[in-house]
Amino acid sequence: MSRHSLPRQADDFPAWYGAVVSRAGLAESSLVRGAMVIKPYGYAIWEAIQRALDERIKATGHENLYFPLLVPSTVLEREGELVEGFAPEVAVVTHAGGKKLEEPLIVRPTSEAVIWATYARWIQSYRDLPLLYNQWANVVRWELRPRLFLRTTEFLWQEGHTAHETEDEAIAEALRILHDVYADTAEQVLAIPVLRGRKSESERFPGAVETFAIEALMRDGKALQAGTSHYFGQNFARTYDVRFTDRNGKEEYAYATSWGASTRLVGGLIMAHGDDAGLRLPPAVAPYQVVIVPIAGSEGDPARVREASDVLATTLRAAGLRVRLDDREQRPGFKFNEWELKGVPIRLELGERELDGGHATLVRRDTGAKETTRTDGVAGRARELLAEIQRGLLEDARAFRDEHTLEQPESYDVMREFLQAAGGLAVGPWCGASTCEERVKQETRATIRCLPLQRAGSEGTCIVCGSPAVERATWSQAY
Amino acid sequence: MSRHSLPRQADDFPAWYGAVVSRAGLAESSLVRGAMVIKPYGYAIWEAIQRALDERIKATGHENLYFPLLVPSTVLEREGELVEGFAPEVAVVTHAGGKKLEEPLIVRPTSEAVIWATYARWIQSYRDLPLLYNQWANVVRWELRPRLFLRTTEFLWQEGHTAHETEDEAIAEALRILHDVYADTAEQVLAIPVLRGRKSESERFPGAVETFAIEALMRDGKALQAGTSHYFGQNFARTYDVRFTDRNGKEEYAYATSWGASTRLVGGLIMAHGDDAGLRLPPAVAPYQVVIVPIAGSEGDPARVREASDVLATTLRAAGLRVRLDDREQRPGFKFNEWELKGVPIRLELGERELDGGHATLVRRDTGAKETTRTDGVAGRARELLAEIQRGLLEDARAFRDEHTLEQPESYDVMREFLQAAGGLAVGPWCGASTCEERVKQETRATIRCLPLQRAGSEGTCIVCGSPAVERATWSQAY
Repeated sequence: MSRHSLPRQADDFPAWYGAVVSRAGLAESSLVRGAMVIKPYGYAIWEAIQRALDERIKATGHENLYFPLLVPSTVLEREGELVEGFAPEVAVVTHAGGKKLEEPLIVRPTSEAVIWATYARWIQSYRDLPLLYNQWANVVRWELRPRLFLRTTEFLWQEGHTAHETEDEAIAEALRILHDVYADTAEQVLAIPVLRGRKSESERFPGAVETFAIEALMRDGKALQAGTSHYFGQNFARTYDVRFTDRNGKEEYAYATSWGASTRLVGGLIMAHGDDAGLRLPPAVAPYQVVIVPIAGSEGDPARVREASDVLATTLRAAGLRVRLDDREQRPGFKFNEWELKGVPIRLELGERELDGGHATLVRRDTGAKETTRTDGVAGRARELLAEIQRGLLEDARAFRDEHTLEQPESYDVMREFLQAAGGLAVGPWCGASTCEERVKQETRATIRCLPLQRAGSEGTCIVCGSPAVERATWSQAY
Repeated sequence: MSRHSLPRQADDFPAWYGAVVSRAGLAESSLVRGAMVIKPYGYAIWEAIQRALDERIKATGHENLYFPLLVPSTVLEREGELVEGFAPEVAVVTHAGGKKLEEPLIVRPTSEAVIWATYARWIQSYRDLPLLYNQWANVVRWELRPRLFLRTTEFLWQEGHTAHETEDEAIAEALRILHDVYADTAEQVLAIPVLRGRKSESERFPGAVETFAIEALMRDGKALQAGTSHYFGQNFARTYDVRFTDRNGKEEYAYATSWGASTRLVGGLIMAHGDDAGLRLPPAVAPYQVVIVPIAGSEGDPARVREASDVLATTLRAAGLRVRLDDREQRPGFKFNEWELKGVPIRLELGERELDGGHATLVRRDTGAKETTRTDGVAGRARELLAEIQRGLLEDARAFRDEHTLEQPESYDVMREFLQAAGGLAVGPWCGASTCEERVKQETRATIRCLPLQRAGSEGTCIVCGSPAVERATWSQAY
């Protein structure tokens, strides 16, 4: 246990994770197995992530819309690969309005089926293309081993579904989302450095020709898939008969992409930055960027401190910062611990001594560094510090990832040992055979997290079997 | 048919409504009976409404969170009145993860049950109160007579659920939401004037001690309930055993409110402002506030007009306006009709003649008024016009409501005839007996839309039965 009475990360990372989620007030289990209640502090973080993604989704030319939750089972069943992929996970509505339904309805596990069945009505000509649509929604996938935020029976996400005239345009779309929406949000907003790559065949989304993903390394040495973007070729268009008249007057099937990022990102945020004292939130998503803790000595004038705290809060808010003034009747030490646990980037302490000197104390959550600043310049200084913290967390996480990346292992034995211990990411040449992929998984529980976006080829021989390599793969244990 | 080939409102209001929803690209029916696809233009309006509500919900001290979609049927069944109210409308999940569930799960029709079952864990002491929480969610209520936006099997909404120490505080909360969130959004954002009142017993939410509502008059003379706020007393706390230690160390049950507003508001917006040419959107929620239509004459220089249009669009966007530049290859007349149908508040026409004179033509959607303005002052002028349109629509709707309100009918016969013809709102003294309420409903299909917030009493005799009146009721046919 740390002084915050959290389990230590090094002792028991899963216990640490569970304790942080619970004690920082992020989420809890609900009455339905595997579904969570997202509590206000956790939801505020999700809202910030939503805003960042939504801005980027719109800036890249997409519009939001909304498709129904319930999908007729026959519509889902038309798409063989989707059904095969999701059948074990779906929840089925058999009764509604007091009657048994003639046809069961599936609670959407994802919306490709209902959307492409509808696109058939919306797409007649190349003039109707591209369709660049996204929806914010809840989905249900029955989970056998649920884990708050990371794997829940119901989760919240955005799912984009686009239709295009050509293969090139569709692939460019899937990559644009990967780079300009997902990787940009992860790095610039969540301060999480990510690998951008292709999935191997065994890790692709059902029905996808190509799945692209961003992968992040957590502080326990495991990877987290933090967003995926799929190119489907004409598979869905064939299944749901989405044909259009192209520029030459010929009938063609439309090309599809879909892409999603979910509340799982909140889990990634916790595990990428948290330490033994709790969360460390990047300022861009912190519900409160600054918490003000008034320190009223037992002999001084508490009203004076409270008033000065109020004034400071107003000043900082006027400067556009998200501020919490913690004037509860608790001991300062209790409050310090709580706000450290909750990961607020800056704590501002204000006591009579500070007041007399015309200054305040600022404490950074990321480094613990403490400094004194004049109260008349506090907003400017807080803003500088927030920018430093945002940058610092990204650098920290990048340095951690670099230290936990095994480039070009000397031998398969070395790589196996590294992966078995969840030492991080191992990057080595691969022959492309699923047998080697499977062998690594059996022996280490690690999977190929990603392959280079460009099929550039590789020198040398497969780290697993010694046959000629076709590309370099990145392996890791993963969530 | 009007020149926009819409049915005329006066001829067939429901047909007009359906045609506007469809042709303006707001929504369409989905593959599941009664559930709708909200299309991008309709969803953009909903996003604007969401923003307005969410701002006000937060400004009044509430936080967002999220509870699961699926509720164990036994949890819902504990609350007798809720179950009785919603049983005929629920959708039931009986199978999940490839197995029959031991206990069926209900797709939430509303979340009081799951939330209060959880509040039991969150509330121990008066120090834990109040809980001021809200969620944005989808709910499912099986509809026998679905109608896009107005009554759909699945709809999107926010539902607030608060817990309080005292009755007074809970009632004040329910009224604060009615005034500061719902009525304010309706009037200031949607430009829809609303009545604020109490519901009669027969119209209350299941389990509510008091239901407050905002009611708006549509242009066919029918009322629309546009938001409700309920006070539940200690009913839920008793059912779900939510007790707390009060300030005197005594055990008490917590007092509850809940309140919701939904995608139905989009329907209200259509029917409160629309005319025979289509939508008329208040600028505050219009996805585009200004549409620029370049008019390139067949002999002129189309590139010059296009460039000037681009510059104007940039100028207007820089001034904070939402602008659409319609440079599609269609005839101007076609575009004019389409943007009128879609209710864009201002159309800006720019042709070579205008360009030569250094001006542009602005056309108001609400009044059809056309004016010429200098291009160098166009952003300022557009902003003024938008403010006028926002105000004008509210005034129009208020004038319409006043003209369609029958105050103090001379006799029951007069009121009956008025209500049978869906002439609007009839306000008359009522004895408080449900028999009179029922008689009016049987004879006219009108219900009591609301009663005064203050039980102020009433002079005179019941308009229906002639017994002494207890208060003044507002009757109308309604959606």
